[in-house]
Amino acid sequence: MALKVGYLGPEGTFCEEASNLYCKKLKNAELIPYATIHDLLIAVNKGKLDEGVTPIENSVEGTIGVVTDMLVKDVNLNIYEEIVLPIRHCLIAKKGTTLNDITDVISHPQAIDQCKDWLRKHLPKIQLHLAYSTADAVKQVATSIETGILSNLGGKGLKRVFAAIGTKASTKLYKLNIVAENINDYADNTTRFVVLSKKDHAKTGDDKTSIVFTIARDRPGGLYNILGEFAVRNINLTKIESRPSKKALGDYFFFIDMQGHRMDKKVAQALKEIKRKVAFLKILGSYPRVK
Amino acid sequence: MALKVGYLGPEGTFCEEASNLYCKKLKNAELIPYATIHDLLIAVNKGKLDEGVTPIENSVEGTIGVVTDMLVKDVNLNIYEEIVLPIRHCLIAKKGTTLNDITDVISHPQAIDQCKDWLRKHLPKIQLHLAYSTADAVKQVATSIETGILSNLGGKGLKRVFAAIGTKASTKLYKLNIVAENINDYADNTTRFVVLSKKDHAKTGDDKTSIVFTIARDRPGGLYNILGEFAVRNINLTKIESRPSKKALGDYFFFIDMQGHRMDKKVAQALKEIKRKVAFLKILGSYPRVK
Repeated sequence: MALKVGYLGPEGTFCEEASNLYCKKLKNAELIPYATIHDLLIAVNKGKLDEGVTPIENSVEGTIGVVTDMLVKDVNLNIYEEIVLPIRHCLIAKKGTTLNDITDVISHPQAIDQCKDWLRKHLPKIQLHLAYSTADAVKQVATSIETGILSNLGGKGLKRVFAAIGTKASTKLYKLNIVAENINDYADNTTRFVVLSKKDHAKTGDDKTSIVFTIARDRPGGLYNILGEFAVRNINLTKIESRPSKKALGDYFFFIDMQGHRMDKKVAQALKEIKRKVAFLKILGSYPRVK
Repeated sequence: MALKVGYLGPEGTFCEEASNLYCKKLKNAELIPYATIHDLLIAVNKGKLDEGVTPIENSVEGTIGVVTDMLVKDVNLNIYEEIVLPIRHCLIAKKGTTLNDITDVISHPQAIDQCKDWLRKHLPKIQLHLAYSTADAVKQVATSIETGILSNLGGKGLKRVFAAIGTKASTKLYKLNIVAENINDYADNTTRFVVLSKKDHAKTGDDKTSIVFTIARDRPGGLYNILGEFAVRNINLTKIESRPSKKALGDYFFFIDMQGHRMDKKVAQALKEIKRKVAFLKILGSYPRVK
């Protein structure tokens, strides 16, 4: 039976690209797009899906709070794998279109924002249009041009030529051409995706563990004491982030990623000591480290 | 002469609301909208503006990486004030419109996303449309309906009634009505804005200081040693966040907010000690604490 793997859709997004990369390792998986992160995580939690792939942080936009918030409060899921993808935006149009032909560009506002300098330099006179996702923008360029919806936008007598900002992968879906590649202003734009599951990942020898905990408020040194448990055991931390718990001002959730599996002796010891010191501790999973 | 204060526009956004709150304290200020965070920060850095107001983190979306990245690398600006604003979305339409009349809703994708459950429950059959900002959506409802652009979208014979998701403040700008208030699914949706300036804020007795530093990579306990400088001096940390430095995998910037002004004796001592221990330290400013 095929493993049911949900992802933040629609087809042709970077999240589908990450999911495809992940599914290459699986023998038999069925990919199912979900419209929102909330619905995706609830579906995995209820057992309607075996696994769910969601973006969790972007190097330009930061952590996606709705994911970490739901992992703390709303679902009991493990981070089973992580996938890090460089986000490379492409300018995509119908076959035969050159840069000079383009009069209109459509994409998700975040994608447009991430390519603003490039657009200003290379296409200073174009008109911008918004879409729900980069995939939706590409789809509109592929399908609406033929039915004349977009090309009529400019009124009679004006020939409008649309291009979309989207993923390289999405061009294959619709047989479109890439007019320009890597047009994002920040070359080092990466997104980290995680695979969420009810399962626990076995040790591989090179793993990471993610946890979240709270410390009583306004206690200087509280975090310092917790970090000491890692320091004395020589455990390397790869991420630390505090987020307001929203229960009271000054109450924080701390999200920490560390090297090592929760079943490794020194990680297990550190977590045992920390559990004694904090009001709340949740292990979000151990999974193979992406290098 | 009026103080020139830029903000992330356009008019009618939450950032304008935050800027207005801030400017109430100033005697004479001219508010100037900027289209992107990048252009806003560069304008303050070049002296074209005296101050700039930008969102820096949202409780649902997380830290806005482009702001923290630019503060580290591209500009030399101080955080001069902070403003914390609850984000309360409203459903806004022409006067006389009731909830049952509405056939179409327009807003920024993030605002639509933050009201998804409410919309599903109260307006399950509406068609959704995208705008660049919540302010732009409100403007479209205010202006386009009269000229018939939006209302013709549905084709002949179909009466379309548009509503926008936006701020309460924006309704006054266009004399529109609020059909429903506080329609965001997460009641505790807040955004933290900062005022950036070349100036340094004087001590008020209840201040915060923000810093950013790097630690040599893969050094377990590196962060622990730094935090020790705060712990031994009883300095309370209100935020800690690591972000990849993008120079090399495993290299991180640490952003820390602490209670106290950089001119306070114990804060000054801690910063002096930390400066000796790290490769890079930048003080991002001391400013009055928002309670």
